[in-house]
Amino acid sequence: MSPKGGQRTFRLTIEYDGSDFHGWQRQKNDRTVQETLESALGIMTREKIVVIGSGRTDAGVHACGQVASFKTTSSLNAGTFFKGLNSLLPDDVVILACDPMPLDFHARFDVTRKHYRYYILNRPLALAIGRQFVWHIRKRLDIAAMQQAAAVFPGTHDFKAFEGSGSPRAHTVRTVTRAELTSTGEGDLRFDIEANGFLRFMVRNIVGTLVEVGLGKIAPAQVERILASKDRSRAGATAPPQGLFLMQVIY
Amino acid sequence: MSPKGGQRTFRLTIEYDGSDFHGWQRQKNDRTVQETLESALGIMTREKIVVIGSGRTDAGVHACGQVASFKTTSSLNAGTFFKGLNSLLPDDVVILACDPMPLDFHARFDVTRKHYRYYILNRPLALAIGRQFVWHIRKRLDIAAMQQAAAVFPGTHDFKAFEGSGSPRAHTVRTVTRAELTSTGEGDLRFDIEANGFLRFMVRNIVGTLVEVGLGKIAPAQVERILASKDRSRAGATAPPQGLFLMQVIY
Repeated sequence: MSPKGGQRTFRLTIEYDGSDFHGWQRQKNDRTVQETLESALGIMTREKIVVIGSGRTDAGVHACGQVASFKTTSSLNAGTFFKGLNSLLPDDVVILACDPMPLDFHARFDVTRKHYRYYILNRPLALAIGRQFVWHIRKRLDIAAMQQAAAVFPGTHDFKAFEGSGSPRAHTVRTVTRAELTSTGEGDLRFDIEANGFLRFMVRNIVGTLVEVGLGKIAPAQVERILASKDRSRAGATAPPQGLFLMQVIY
Repeated sequence: MSPKGGQRTFRLTIEYDGSDFHGWQRQKNDRTVQETLESALGIMTREKIVVIGSGRTDAGVHACGQVASFKTTSSLNAGTFFKGLNSLLPDDVVILACDPMPLDFHARFDVTRKHYRYYILNRPLALAIGRQFVWHIRKRLDIAAMQQAAAVFPGTHDFKAFEGSGSPRAHTVRTVTRAELTSTGEGDLRFDIEANGFLRFMVRNIVGTLVEVGLGKIAPAQVERILASKDRSRAGATAPPQGLFLMQVIY
């Protein structure tokens, strides 16, 4: 327990169903995860708390292990935050862990790697139950071709061709340590990607491109050239948000 | 193809996410599965179609294999109904199959058995993702005690003690052919029950009773006496709807 009035830093590990959120980042009129957490922390601490996420997630994207940090001068401990937040938060957000951290811990700047997973259901028939958590694709995908294309991504590359328009970054070079498409049977596919950082829409643009490979619209060998071109217009369309999960943030 | 003007009967096998439905049965002002299907069939056939379900499901209850029948004089065939309905229906209902049937097939009267499944998540921490599909119970359940109690149900019994109030049936004797609680690991429990028919709220009242056994509020041996008493007030509270799935209807 720190002396009263001293600032302390906590880390939250968070699960959320993104279906009813307009993404992570606080916005003027929309319901967001950041604002929901800040409200609950405001009630607990009677302070105006700023919650810093490891990064934004877009509207409709889910998280099994988003990480955020906040500073407070309140004397509440991690266990109290954990229990109190879980009782105050709406049922589409759950705090998985709350840990005290060194004062200078920063959930965004200190990220080492992030792991995202994208779920695809590839079968003619749609699904009613669980449709919020998967991209349903009717036409048969050529999985081997997609796997061949996915192998292009690991390594250090300029990912500008896979950056969403509207929020360009000064530096678009990222190091991907895993890019793996797995068939888990009966039309269930998942794509796991891990990198030291992601550009806006990068995972969804990569998935959209892989799906166009799977549909035969883009040749697998073409993907390397798309990456090298740094030209967004050559890559596939952005995959829909609901198949995407932020699985883990590694520090 | 039958001669024009002749009546034909079709059977629909239906999956739905019950979260946003006020149950199966048509109601004046609420969104229901029956009404949703009847509207879509009305558009396809330009007739006023009555859809007969194998039975009602309550608000919030899901189905992986609800069955319904309808009669029409339209000349559309089963394949056309299958495709047309799936393109007209909202995304929380999917037609899994449409089959032509003998004219006198009746989805409710002809039922032989039904299989329901109820999902429980037993762990301290709530879940955000998938919370619409499970009953989350924080306190540790005694699974062996629940399994002992569940063994009371198979056989032919008067299930009046497990009938919801408000819609009593003249005959409350049913034959249960399976009542099995399975632990599938890490706090995941499922309860499978199969019978030749179910009273209103019967599955949810049985599950509610089993959970009270698991929490130590009702002794396992007491459940047989509750069943014999035919007294609803002695059984447990009704389990919430969202853990319940109508899995299969057998004809």
